[in-house]
This record gives sequence, C-alpha cells and structure tokens, in this order.
Amino acid sequence: MNKQVIIPKAIVTVNNKNEILYNHVLVIEDGIISSIKPEEHFDINSFEGLVHEHRDLILIPGFVQTHIHLCQTLFRGLADDLELLDWLQMKIFPYENAHDINSLSASVRLGIAELQLGGATTILDMGTINHQDVIFNELIDSKMRAIAGKCLVDINDLYPEFKESTRDSIDTCNELAEEFHNKTSKIKYGFAPRFVLSCSEELLRESYEMSKNFHGSLYHTHSSENKSEIDAVRKLHGAENIEYFDRIGVLGDTTILAHCIHVNDMERVKLKKSDTRVAHCPSANLKLASGIANIPGYLKEGISVSLGADGPPCNNNLDMFTEMRLASLIQKPIHGPGIMDALTMLRLATIEGAKALHLDSETGSIEIGKKADLVLLDLMKAGNPILMSDAEIYSSIVYSSGIHNVDHVMIEGEWIVRNSESLLFDTKELLATAEGELTKLINRV
Amino acid sequence: MNKQVIIPKAIVTVNNKNEILYNHVLVIEDGIISSIKPEEHFDINSFEGLVHEHRDLILIPGFVQTHIHLCQTLFRGLADDLELLDWLQMKIFPYENAHDINSLSASVRLGIAELQLGGATTILDMGTINHQDVIFNELIDSKMRAIAGKCLVDINDLYPEFKESTRDSIDTCNELAEEFHNKTSKIKYGFAPRFVLSCSEELLRESYEMSKNFHGSLYHTHSSENKSEIDAVRKLHGAENIEYFDRIGVLGDTTILAHCIHVNDMERVKLKKSDTRVAHCPSANLKLASGIANIPGYLKEGISVSLGADGPPCNNNLDMFTEMRLASLIQKPIHGPGIMDALTMLRLATIEGAKALHLDSETGSIEIGKKADLVLLDLMKAGNPILMSDAEIYSSIVYSSGIHNVDHVMIEGEWIVRNSESLLFDTKELLATAEGELTKLINRV
Repeated sequence: MNKQVIIPKAIVTVNNKNEILYNHVLVIEDGIISSIKPEEHFDINSFEGLVHEHRDLILIPGFVQTHIHLCQTLFRGLADDLELLDWLQMKIFPYENAHDINSLSASVRLGIAELQLGGATTILDMGTINHQDVIFNELIDSKMRAIAGKCLVDINDLYPEFKESTRDSIDTCNELAEEFHNKTSKIKYGFAPRFVLSCSEELLRESYEMSKNFHGSLYHTHSSENKSEIDAVRKLHGAENIEYFDRIGVLGDTTILAHCIHVNDMERVKLKKSDTRVAHCPSANLKLASGIANIPGYLKEGISVSLGADGPPCNNNLDMFTEMRLASLIQKPIHGPGIMDALTMLRLATIEGAKALHLDSETGSIEIGKKADLVLLDLMKAGNPILMSDAEIYSSIVYSSGIHNVDHVMIEGEWIVRNSESLLFDTKELLATAEGELTKLINRV
Repeated sequence: MNKQVIIPKAIVTVNNKNEILYNHVLVIEDGIISSIKPEEHFDINSFEGLVHEHRDLILIPGFVQTHIHLCQTLFRGLADDLELLDWLQMKIFPYENAHDINSLSASVRLGIAELQLGGATTILDMGTINHQDVIFNELIDSKMRAIAGKCLVDINDLYPEFKESTRDSIDTCNELAEEFHNKTSKIKYGFAPRFVLSCSEELLRESYEMSKNFHGSLYHTHSSENKSEIDAVRKLHGAENIEYFDRIGVLGDTTILAHCIHVNDMERVKLKKSDTRVAHCPSANLKLASGIANIPGYLKEGISVSLGADGPPCNNNLDMFTEMRLASLIQKPIHGPGIMDALTMLRLATIEGAKALHLDSETGSIEIGKKADLVLLDLMKAGNPILMSDAEIYSSIVYSSGIHNVDHVMIEGEWIVRNSESLLFDTKELLATAEGELTKLINRV
C-alpha cells in the first residue's frame, strides 16, 4: 500500500460545513484520503510512508473545470475581438478543421499542462470532429480526471467544410464511447453535440439517447450564448434554446449547458425542473461580448452552476482563479457587493463542479474516502501576511490569487506539479512543438 | 558614464506609431535610453558596458498606475463585500486612522514591492492623514517614480475621529510639499483631498491653489464613484461631483479624478473642456459594486483615461495585468467585442498614464531620450508559442499575462526586479513585518 501524509498550514475542505482545519494532517492511502486528523494525534515518527510537510501552504481541493476546449489551446491570441458567430466562422471552425493528429496532440498537451499548473484536476472537455482518440490518449497519459467527447456537427452554415453526416457522427461517437468510456478509472465519455445551429434534431436526440447507454456519461453542449445565435435558433425552431432542448427531450441531470446567458423565465423553470446543469464561463462571455449570465438568479433557485475557462481563444487563459474572481466581480454592480462571495466562488470552482459532473463521491472536496485530488497554495505570494480567519483564506484564494500561487498539485495521490513545475511535461518542449505544429496548421488553413 | 544594453526578442515601444521592433538593441546611458538600433548595427564586442541578453523576452515600458493607496496594503482581505460608504466607515477609515509609523511603513513597503514585481515603475499615490513623510521616505528608498501626497480630510461624518482642522490640513500639506516636491528627480507632490464628502470647500479650493505653486505637482481626488456618495454630494451642494468641482474651480489639466463612474453628459463636457484626467480602476469599481464607467465614451471624446489598481482592500491585487484585462473585458458586452482592444489597453497602462501625470517626456514609452523605465516579460509563460504579429504580442500581454510573466524590471536604468525577485526587498521579511504590524494595528482599532 502506498501511504503518504500532507501537513499543511490549513486544510480548506469545502465540505458541507465548509470547515477549514488548522493543525491537521491528511493521510492518503493508494490515492484515497484515508484520514484527516489533528496533528497532535499523528505520530510522524511511526508513520510508514512519505511525509510532505508544507506548513506554509494551504491545501484545497483540485479545481473542477466544467467547460474546456483543449483542441483550441493553439489558437490563443489568434481570434480576438470578435462575436461568437464571426469568431466561429472566421477563426475557430477553420482552425479546428485544419487539425491533424500532431497539431491536435500539441494543443491538448499544452492545454492540459496549463490547466494542471493552475490547479485543475478534473475537466469536462468538448473535443473536435476529427481525431478525438488523440484527445483521449493525451488525457489518459496526463493522469487528468476527465470527461470528454467528440464534437458532433452535422450542419454547418458558417463553415460547411467542418461537419460530417449524421450517421458518421453518431457511429464514430458510439465507437469512441465504447472504446474510451471508463477506459481508466479517471476517464469517462461526454457526448458533445456542439450547439443547436450545428446539429440536426436527429443528432441531438440520438446522441442523448446513446448517452443513456453509458452509465456515468454526460451530455455536454452550448446554449443561449449570443443574441444572433439565439435569433437564428428562434427562426429555425420557433423556440429559445432551452425550450427547444426541452421539446426534443435532452434536458436532465446529466446535461450540462455551457453559458446560458440569454435565458427567459420559462427556460429557467425548465432548467430547474429538469436539474440541468449550467457551466458558467465569465471570461469567454465578456470577451466574445456575449453578456453576463444571471448566475445569482440560478443559484437562488437551486440550479447547478459550475465554472469553466472555455477555450484559450476566447479567454485567453485556462485558470480557475481568473474565472472565480471575474464571476464574482461582474455580478456585484448588478446584485450588490455581498453577492458571489469568496466562499461561494470556491464552492462553484470545486464541489459544485464535481456535483455537476456526478463525480462528487470522488472529488471536489477534501473528505475521507474521496480521491486525493489536491492543490497546495502559497497565499503569502498573494501578499496576505496574516490569515486570521476562514473568510480571509477564502478571500485570498478567490480575490488575490493566480496561477503563480499554485505550488503543488496531486491527482489521485500522484504528484503532477511540484514547486510550480509540471512533473509530466517539459513545458519548453511543449511550446516548441506547439510552435511548429501551429505554423503547419496555419499553412493548411 | 554607466552604459548598458538590452537585447530582447522584441521592443514594444508604445510610441506614437505603436512600433514593435524586432532584432533591435536598446542602449542605456546613465539611466536614459540613448539609442535603439537594429542588432546588425550594434557591435557587441566593442560595447563598453553591461550587456543584458534576453532574447526570449519582450521589452515593454514600465506600467504607470495613476490611482494607488499604499497605506491600505495591509488591509487586503479585511474589507470584502461592502459598498463604498460602508467600506470606508466600517473598515478603511478606522484602519487608516490606526496607522502608526511602523504599520504605515510596513504597508507601503509591501505595496511597493508588489507593484514593482508586477512591472509598475510609476505611481500616483493617495496617502493618508498622518505620517505622510513615512510614505515619501519609503518611496524614495524604493527608487519608485512617484507622485504622492497627504490625504486631506476636514469633514468626516462617517468616522469623525479621522479628520483634522482645515488649517492643520492645509499647513501640514504645504510643509510636506515644500519638503518632498522634487526632493529627488523621481518624486513629486500630489495634492490629495480625499473626496467631496470629506472636504470643506475651503480645503478643496486652497489645496488646488497651493498645487499651482509647485510646478509639476498634481491635484488628485475621487469623484462620482458610488450612487449613495453622489446622492449625498447632490444633497449637500445641489450639484453632481464634477459640476461642483467645476463651480469651485478645481478642474483642469493637473487634476486627476479617480473613478468617474456616474457622470452625466454635462459633466463629461466639463471633463473634456477642462482637460481633467480620469483614473479608471475597474477592479475596485466592480468589487465595491459601484458600477462600470463609460470609458469608451471618454476615449471617443478624447478625455484622458489611465489605469490604477486602487487599494488592495477593494481589488484585492495591485497589478496592471488584472486591470488591463478587466477594463477591456467589461466593456465588450456593452460596446461590442472590438472595443478596448489589447493595444488600446496597453497604451492606457503606460503612455496614457504618463501623459495624465505630465510625465510623458520621461516615461510611459520606449523612446530615445526617455528614462529607462522598463519591464521584460516572458510571454512563453502565457502559453503563446508563436508571436507571429504585433497584434498577438499585444493580445498576449493584455489578455493572457499576469504578474508571473514579469521577469525583470528597471527604473531609470537600475534593476529593481531580476528573475521575478525584488532586488530591494526581502519579500519574506516584508510579510513577517507586515504580519506583526497588522496584528498591533488591529489591536489599536
């Protein structure tokens, strides 16, 4: 049995009671948190395992990012200052379509490295049409906890080259789900029709039904992001996005909708009733000029909300700190200064993400029996000389920290980041490879 | 003569033509940029001086932060989730009032270290009522380019202990200006009445007139930040903030108003006509739930806008990257995705700040004859494998970078940050001192 213990300054559990435990140690056995106890009840000398003393650092659960596009990492900075439909048509669809297995691999690896260095230990990724197996294999190699799936597109008026037939889409999707769902204990399949405008009703329905054959899988799409998109959906289907999803029967507690910015009252009721989950991506929502989702409204009604960085070309980062702080700040002028406080934000970034993905029995908080998906933060680097109260710790994490505060990251008991360096990737090599692959990709476009 | 040369990957000049120079070297003589020339015209072997080869790094001008409260650094995380007047009454005024020279020194040093590590080389600071000399002495020791001044308060209904008589206020202010204005080539005095609600008309007028006796000084106050504040000003003076400032004759090209969120059309005309400058602090404006200033409107009319992090208790950071990105993103849902593009933001953060402070002959851009106030950024750390175009470099700096991308910082030819470490401060020691001083300060409150 592999035994190790972490001795931090404090353990931010994000459990039901939001306990922060001081002077406690956390014992891990074979990747599982086996006990959390006061240091005075722990005998360091008789402990048979690795001891990690980090008495200046704060232990938090790994972040759960519920909307990511790893295939887009290479396109960061190449698609600024556009609205959604132009952005897709002029940049993202052509670029995604130009991926070969090498460029896709480079993009995914660069994205995973950045996510892990930023403390993310679980992601829900929307893949791309081609070479989805590359994404799965990179996720497996990277030890990430992930739900991912091929992007389904059988209609594409914006960029007609980037689609496939309904039948091909469904067949490939089914093969990939057969191959990769539960391929390792950390990998699951997420069925991923892109959005209403790029999918036939048949594709949306069939992929949803297929998802029901794979226990633990999800249904992951975009919804209600941009006014022009919504107008087009209304023209096509005589309904708002969520109304339409409801009509064709794809809402439910395994459905995750990214964005949900422009949502009417009736749609909000449908979200709540069906227990459909909202993945909130504030950076992307602002950068694409889409708008500000009424997240406090969702939370008040008990609708599941979690956070995602989306893709680097619409953010242009991948870290949860940026999303937590921004998601909090943008609501305050609208709803008052007390809304979306730091504790709420940390919960959305961890346990609420895990719940949204039905992974909360495994991850999202620091509790006995869960997987050791953990991050050690140096809050001194955020200029916080004293952390006198729980509130100050939450404040420091959410309002003052960034990727540079992440010292160490562990997934299921295995260190993947030590001293802010990836143990899995040579980041210089990743960038050099990415540079070569991006140059070739742009020549292919 | 002290000669040195920097050989970066690219020089982002932020000059009038927004030139980015590749394969160029920058020569510095006695702290002044003496030449910028193609590397092929530079003979490294015959150069008699220090050669700094940073061929992977991007050279940009140091950031100019035009609204900072160094005295508040210690209070980070202790005043979250409040609106302006509550925040002042319950937290900030009592804390500022409890400063002694040791706690103030600790606060200022911690703030300066953080600013410099984040690439700021020039600041406009609003001081506090007591012990302003401590702030000046720390600024001088830290080699910062700074305009600073004692905070003037002769009315305080929120926290009556924190004020002084009009006469004391004016007299001390005059003494300080006599002592510190141009005390070194980098230090100037900035007259700093706090805001309308805390100043008698006499104090506002007299300090403005006094500022005219000190060539190169500024007049720095807050304006139009919060709706309750504005209501109170209207009740008191029958006017909006800027209307009132105009009536008493304190607008002008040496006046800098922080915030300017709730400003009507007539006030905007007055800002423009008087060439008064706006210091925009987006993080603080959101965090205190104050609102979003119409910055694109100001820019369209040619009103001077620059950026500041304000104080750590309302941000809770001090870095320009956070402000540039946020200032850009929050306007896009309102004004469209092309507004406040990356180049515009970098200009506001550098040359526009220098112009606002009348320091643009010295700093704010990389041009021959200006002081060598410079920052070297590692944009690879922002995950940008290729920087194929000028637009991508601006994008990487504004949308993807943070304090962790700052490798080296120089003020007037003198390195103050090397390899992301302060050469002036032992940051661990600063934090330890800050911890002790904050504990004592809180006991004094």
